[in-house]
Amino acid sequence: MRNIKLTLQYDGTGYSGWQIQKNGRSIQETIEKKLAVILGEKIKLIGSGRTDAGVHARGQTANFKTHSKIPLANIQMALNSALPKEMVVTHISEAPLSFDSQRSAKSKIYKYTISNGNFVDPFIRKYAVRYFYKLNIPLMRSAARDLLGRHDFKAFKTNDGMGEKNTVRTVKDIKIEKDGNLIYIYIEADGFLYNMVRNIAGTLVEIGRGKMEKDFIKAILKKRDRRFCGPTAPAKGLCLMRVNY
Amino acid sequence: MRNIKLTLQYDGTGYSGWQIQKNGRSIQETIEKKLAVILGEKIKLIGSGRTDAGVHARGQTANFKTHSKIPLANIQMALNSALPKEMVVTHISEAPLSFDSQRSAKSKIYKYTISNGNFVDPFIRKYAVRYFYKLNIPLMRSAARDLLGRHDFKAFKTNDGMGEKNTVRTVKDIKIEKDGNLIYIYIEADGFLYNMVRNIAGTLVEIGRGKMEKDFIKAILKKRDRRFCGPTAPAKGLCLMRVNY
Repeated sequence: MRNIKLTLQYDGTGYSGWQIQKNGRSIQETIEKKLAVILGEKIKLIGSGRTDAGVHARGQTANFKTHSKIPLANIQMALNSALPKEMVVTHISEAPLSFDSQRSAKSKIYKYTISNGNFVDPFIRKYAVRYFYKLNIPLMRSAARDLLGRHDFKAFKTNDGMGEKNTVRTVKDIKIEKDGNLIYIYIEADGFLYNMVRNIAGTLVEIGRGKMEKDFIKAILKKRDRRFCGPTAPAKGLCLMRVNY
Repeated sequence: MRNIKLTLQYDGTGYSGWQIQKNGRSIQETIEKKLAVILGEKIKLIGSGRTDAGVHARGQTANFKTHSKIPLANIQMALNSALPKEMVVTHISEAPLSFDSQRSAKSKIYKYTISNGNFVDPFIRKYAVRYFYKLNIPLMRSAARDLLGRHDFKAFKTNDGMGEKNTVRTVKDIKIEKDGNLIYIYIEADGFLYNMVRNIAGTLVEIGRGKMEKDFIKAILKKRDRRFCGPTAPAKGLCLMRVNY
């Protein structure tokens, strides 16, 4: 038995997200089906976590167990030939049998891309969300610092009906970078609640446009109530950059 | 009467190119129609030149004459709201009545993007062409130098039935850059023949993969016969970067 780890890039536009859904094509299912054909056995692919419909990845990780003896390079080549052009396997490696993409993850890094000009560059229109009101970056940076560290992020969790009880997470790093009209929010945490990055991005935008006070983050963290945080920023601006093990 | 100059970006995927065609939607027609609605009069948009079906632009220029008194900023805003997301007006300015996007152009810069790895990054799959055989960049650079200067580029012109007689052009600059698996070919010339950049890119790829001798460029230039040059590289890798006046 082998345990094989994949690193994946995908353009999530038009997909129903990572996880297999009743309706719509998921990334997970698309890859599992191709793997089954290549390896000649049913494959269960474990992702580091769900990405929502329309969310992208530059460094999603996943693993699967197989009895196949096909060399890694051949699996990668066959998979990349078979997969739709929206997804590719960038790395493949053997992992210990105990490795689990989800449970073994130490932290993840997400990037949220905002286009803050008068128009959106057509070449990144599917990977950035336009906010036309001028955003105050120093204010956003200062507010973002209040998210750093171990907190109960319940207020930043959209209810997904899964009833996850532990809403405490540790934000290890948060950075806001500006490049011309583009603003990037990078967040690294030991784990993310449902819609947490998009709710944080939406809240930081509200602060940046002056609709909420700078100390608003501290107040919401204390309130632990989703109704007080900003709107959920659209999926297409979000990209899973890296999973650390 | 005013003469208004536009700078345009567009993702040419799915368009029939710049010029109005009987079949398919063209960039020119799409913009002309929106301008007519905004300005309340029929508009003739003159582009710096045709871009083919599927070719992109980061700095196409165009101009049109109008009797309208609407301020520039309002025209730009209205146009960007009305245009499909594949195209935007990045700059707008008043030009002298004598200005003509095509005739006044001193030079143009094109960029051709090659993906030379085992897979194509899904995020640029529509803007890069994959060549999987390893390309020898120093060899390509050395061959490209033979294109510099004033030459008869007849061998690099695809016959478009237009019977253009003067096939002499001056290549002012040609650069080949490498960034990871991506290779960019930049070409600046005082003018380009039909498919000239794509034929040059196709030929440089043949040289880079070792199928043609390094001195091949000199030989084709002398032969002035399209049958001797390399294949026409696909449209999607090509982008019009800038028009100099």
